[in-house]
Amino acid sequence: MSTTTSTTRDSYDKIAARKQAERQSLIPEAWRLPAEKLAEYTSSPTANVLHVPRESGILNERELDITENHDAVSLLERLRKGPKDGGFSSEEVVVAFCKRAALAQQLTNCVTEILFDSGIARAKELDSRRAANPDEALPPLWGLPISLKDCFKVPGFDASAGMILFAEKPATEYSALPKLLYQLGAVFYCKTNVPQTMMTADSDNNVFGRTLNPNNKSLTAGGSSGGEGALVAMRGSVLGIGSDIAGSIRIPSYCCGTYGFKPSANIVPYAGQTNPAADGIPGILPVAGPLATSMRSCNYFMQVVMSNQPWKIDVDCLHIPWRGIAAPEKGSKLRIGIVEDDGILTATPPVRRTLRQAREKLARAGVEIVDIKLPGIKEDSATIWASFAMEGCKTVLEYIGAAEEPYVQSVQNIGLVAMKSMTMEELFAWNVTRSKIETKYRDLWLENDLDAILNPLTAHTAPPLDTWSSISQAIWNLVDYPSCIIPTGKVEAEDVVDQAAKYGADDEKIYQLYTGPEDYKGAPTALQLIGMKQEDENLTLLASFVDGILNEN
Amino acid sequence: MSTTTSTTRDSYDKIAARKQAERQSLIPEAWRLPAEKLAEYTSSPTANVLHVPRESGILNERELDITENHDAVSLLERLRKGPKDGGFSSEEVVVAFCKRAALAQQLTNCVTEILFDSGIARAKELDSRRAANPDEALPPLWGLPISLKDCFKVPGFDASAGMILFAEKPATEYSALPKLLYQLGAVFYCKTNVPQTMMTADSDNNVFGRTLNPNNKSLTAGGSSGGEGALVAMRGSVLGIGSDIAGSIRIPSYCCGTYGFKPSANIVPYAGQTNPAADGIPGILPVAGPLATSMRSCNYFMQVVMSNQPWKIDVDCLHIPWRGIAAPEKGSKLRIGIVEDDGILTATPPVRRTLRQAREKLARAGVEIVDIKLPGIKEDSATIWASFAMEGCKTVLEYIGAAEEPYVQSVQNIGLVAMKSMTMEELFAWNVTRSKIETKYRDLWLENDLDAILNPLTAHTAPPLDTWSSISQAIWNLVDYPSCIIPTGKVEAEDVVDQAAKYGADDEKIYQLYTGPEDYKGAPTALQLIGMKQEDENLTLLASFVDGILNEN
Repeated sequence: MSTTTSTTRDSYDKIAARKQAERQSLIPEAWRLPAEKLAEYTSSPTANVLHVPRESGILNERELDITENHDAVSLLERLRKGPKDGGFSSEEVVVAFCKRAALAQQLTNCVTEILFDSGIARAKELDSRRAANPDEALPPLWGLPISLKDCFKVPGFDASAGMILFAEKPATEYSALPKLLYQLGAVFYCKTNVPQTMMTADSDNNVFGRTLNPNNKSLTAGGSSGGEGALVAMRGSVLGIGSDIAGSIRIPSYCCGTYGFKPSANIVPYAGQTNPAADGIPGILPVAGPLATSMRSCNYFMQVVMSNQPWKIDVDCLHIPWRGIAAPEKGSKLRIGIVEDDGILTATPPVRRTLRQAREKLARAGVEIVDIKLPGIKEDSATIWASFAMEGCKTVLEYIGAAEEPYVQSVQNIGLVAMKSMTMEELFAWNVTRSKIETKYRDLWLENDLDAILNPLTAHTAPPLDTWSSISQAIWNLVDYPSCIIPTGKVEAEDVVDQAAKYGADDEKIYQLYTGPEDYKGAPTALQLIGMKQEDENLTLLASFVDGILNEN
Repeated sequence: MSTTTSTTRDSYDKIAARKQAERQSLIPEAWRLPAEKLAEYTSSPTANVLHVPRESGILNERELDITENHDAVSLLERLRKGPKDGGFSSEEVVVAFCKRAALAQQLTNCVTEILFDSGIARAKELDSRRAANPDEALPPLWGLPISLKDCFKVPGFDASAGMILFAEKPATEYSALPKLLYQLGAVFYCKTNVPQTMMTADSDNNVFGRTLNPNNKSLTAGGSSGGEGALVAMRGSVLGIGSDIAGSIRIPSYCCGTYGFKPSANIVPYAGQTNPAADGIPGILPVAGPLATSMRSCNYFMQVVMSNQPWKIDVDCLHIPWRGIAAPEKGSKLRIGIVEDDGILTATPPVRRTLRQAREKLARAGVEIVDIKLPGIKEDSATIWASFAMEGCKTVLEYIGAAEEPYVQSVQNIGLVAMKSMTMEELFAWNVTRSKIETKYRDLWLENDLDAILNPLTAHTAPPLDTWSSISQAIWNLVDYPSCIIPTGKVEAEDVVDQAAKYGADDEKIYQLYTGPEDYKGAPTALQLIGMKQEDENLTLLASFVDGILNEN
């Protein structure tokens, strides 16, 4: 690979300094927070910066309305109306989100590449083409700003994915999904931060630094789509694209308090991204999917992608069309399996509370609740890890080594270097094991006659920086069930510390990370809703239904 | 694997003699052809035995009607009616096909396991349960006899798949597909022959011997589902189940003159068969699918399987439901890409003629014809072979070695022993190469705006025994497009020998296998219709439409 045998380059810190200075330079002066204000907003160890954009004076009232009172679906409605009929132009929407993303960046370090100029230029072009051709049909994402996780490629901009080796090497082509979204009318205006290697839950790397959680800066923003989590939580984006092989859409959604939808594999185009593993590697497949400010925005994204023959743009996509299934009606008799914890980690007080409240609300709404347990997550976790180590992390270690950059803390924690690669015979055996696990989960589903499963993503809310260790969320990647994150609120005063850990010493250690409502002030609570494999359309309907009950929409 | 370290067993020929004697003993005396009659029917080197069941006197008029004047769909209609309303009982249908399968076996050696007793017992049971519960809804395959390729498991019977090692070891469970078909009302009454290793196109092995082509015994019956091809051609079955990883449904359909449908991977349950490769091996996936006496029987099979959530019985099945798409109407503007040959072998005279006639009929019917070429089959063939050699054929060599049985001729021809296994890195690279080939084919499809592709399965009709060498039909396995075989007639007097081979010495050698209409008397002609990946439902509709035009139904 020519990229790894690069000619002499600057040291990693010089490249990083240039990248960060360039990023800063692309934020217009008028959109910058004064240094003393910034210091003030972020001075508390548990600083919450969600309110800053409104107070900053940098967005006008209309821009605050655009960014705060709309989700992707209502913005698209207004964009389709156009300014003449009380709606919005693409330009004003894109500018509003550029401003807000600029603020989010200053407050949480969530953005990697800034595409404000080209985004605003495209929005203007869309507006004028429309003015010139008022009868032309508008594509389904017309004029909508969409943010992208850094690994997605847009021509002219780096897709370094937090690896020094790939910095200052602009992409020449679109990844498959941005290409499709662009064709459907989307406007790209920024890309967002990831962890070094994209294999941890802390979006921290040597190129761009660490993304902070806008709800409480002492807690992780999650990863690997952590930049998206923080940006969407700040409403610097109403619809961002992340990716997920072990929780990377769901963890940041969960930590930052956004909606997030992890599709089944090969439903949404994934091809053509910067990839920290060998091309053609088998095992658990990564997937692309949305993070958004509403469930219906995630659902609309899924509908738009699935309705547009994604296999035409990514040959790996399944030919599973959007069918327009009827939504379950209020009062429908749904059966939802509730999982209290993963059997390894005891749910901490805020997680137990939100699950209890959800159970009560669902029962009141007539949903049939079935208590179920996940069968044998402990053994299955070994199968999950084995997949991620399939090539002994050779490719990503080469990438990091070639740039002579140090490992960040969260990467050190997972011990990449010690991972053992597989032989062909071990791969065959791994496939057999996965198939058995898939069978076990399918049987769990059928025996309980489930419509969906609801569980906490993990035992805690967003934990302190570099402490995420749970892998059990990746079971849904292993068995390939779509799953989404539904925010339910915040840590409350009633969520007092207790000593309820019941699974032994390791559990106890993690359980103690929860130090009470004061330290966890502002930390979002959320639940995970899981659907049947490749029945992603069905999960969008169930998710709307359940979100409606949990959040009384 | 305990099966390979078996305790002392009899030599391979003793086991084979016992298996064959047992098979013979399970054919009732009254259903046996007198030895001299049998000799007479099969004495000519190009003997055609299709007419023998009618002449044998072993089936009565009603049994001849059942086996000759119906396909699976009309039989199911009559079975649903029942004998009181002018239809059939399951028992009489099953008995009729047992008789005819017994004759087919004596004439072509197409059957492996005989399940007549248990099949007839089940049919009786179905009939009496129905008589007792006349209002009970009947499942979609109620009472229909279905034949199975030997590798499918039915409890109580061997599934040796032509390997001595697995002979005399009755299965204890159903394979996934027979289990589903059984639940849906099917009756199993016999299993059918395959090649040793299931990797050649000649259904010949040391357990059961060689299956002959009922149209002309000097030509191969094809493989690996060759027993099904011969049995269905004899109308000893109206619906048989085969499997296909490189042509194994299509080759015998093509050679014997039956309809055959190779689905996309993971549409029809495949799990739980006797498998000549390591469990969990990646690469090209084998698929199960129907051989039948009519296109609509294949299509009905696909509809029944896809409508019944096959993932409930085989966790590998995709969640792609049958949707009930509207059929193209007479006069619909379809675009069909016609491929003259694979660019390696020149089509021989009967193949050129049938393709030319098809082209004319389709054009007259208003179909838009696009001439296309398959891009680079020669290079892609190496990718196909590499998949079959992924483990260096270690598993199947072990199975054959453990039984100390010799290789049959067609297995010697393909040179199993010399196949090189892959490393993990080579597997990753193979996946990348396959993806590029898939992209190339998808682009061919989109650029030509195709609804389907029509081509000859290979350059010749059924060739002489042990001479099949074409691999290009496996491109549709590699890119995973569903494809079906539509019979078009027989070799005709006008198909005179010529010297038209245009691709060099190897082509010339194969081309010369065609020695004219006298030697190839009775050899079926057929064409292959190919649909888009995972759009199997759509291909059933297109296949009905095209079959209607080619065969003026």
